[in-house]
Amino acid sequence: MIILGIDPGFGRMGVGIIEKTEGKLHLLRAGLIETDPSLPHHERLCKIYNELTALIRAHKPIILSIERLFFTKNQKTVIPVAQARGVALLTAGIAGLTVYEYTPPEVKCAITGNGKADKKAMQKMVALTLGTTENFIDDTTDAIALAITAAYDRRNVRPIA
Amino acid sequence: MIILGIDPGFGRMGVGIIEKTEGKLHLLRAGLIETDPSLPHHERLCKIYNELTALIRAHKPIILSIERLFFTKNQKTVIPVAQARGVALLTAGIAGLTVYEYTPPEVKCAITGNGKADKKAMQKMVALTLGTTENFIDDTTDAIALAITAAYDRRNVRPIA
Repeated sequence: MIILGIDPGFGRMGVGIIEKTEGKLHLLRAGLIETDPSLPHHERLCKIYNELTALIRAHKPIILSIERLFFTKNQKTVIPVAQARGVALLTAGIAGLTVYEYTPPEVKCAITGNGKADKKAMQKMVALTLGTTENFIDDTTDAIALAITAAYDRRNVRPIA
Repeated sequence: MIILGIDPGFGRMGVGIIEKTEGKLHLLRAGLIETDPSLPHHERLCKIYNELTALIRAHKPIILSIERLFFTKNQKTVIPVAQARGVALLTAGIAGLTVYEYTPPEVKCAITGNGKADKKAMQKMVALTLGTTENFIDDTTDAIALAITAAYDRRNVRPIA
């Protein structure tokens, strides 16, 4: 089972793709989709759509795990981030993925057992879970953590036939 | 010149398509794209994308005129509306449309000369401008008004060759 994790953003969207085989998790891809702030919004959204579509075609995930969006103090960015998130959801929808949403505390709890874990603890546990010593940057860590959270989600445990 | 006007919404997205020929405006299409609240968000966004894509293919607009989104008191809806707006921008971007954005007061001012015009005044002037006696519902009126605003925009007056 291949899972795509997305940390929604407009200028920087974190992306992590993992594979779950026989209960083990492997990292297939981790990175950022970045868009140029000097371009019109619709062109930046096209770039997100094109890059996500290419990733989905290359890795064939069946689940999208994406952060649930809430109002934050940073009200200026929530509209462009929500627009980018809408494009991510659409791209997954067109490709027929099942979509799961998690809040940041849910992800932190799934990864570290502590819903208030800090960034360092998250980076450490994500690397440990995937058996890597790689240091992921913040947006990428969050995206991979979202994918791992979906892999742990009981809804994704297939019943024994 | 054919212009697509969109009043962004998630459950109901207003759509108006007008043609400007020799300085005159004609209504080609007016309606709503509606999505079922009981469906997952990504499926609803797919419906918006598919219906908008079909409208663009059928009428071949070259401009999208869309309402600029701001924070309102109704914070609960701004995220889903922004997600739907992102999908509308993406759809226009994929089809190669030029995108113009207007605030509600800019649209009201362009249509009635009064940036604080009420809904009745807007409905009346939209109908008068298009030479129709049809009564459009609110979201549709706003979408047509956005298309008319773009038609009046000096950036869209082609220079004489």
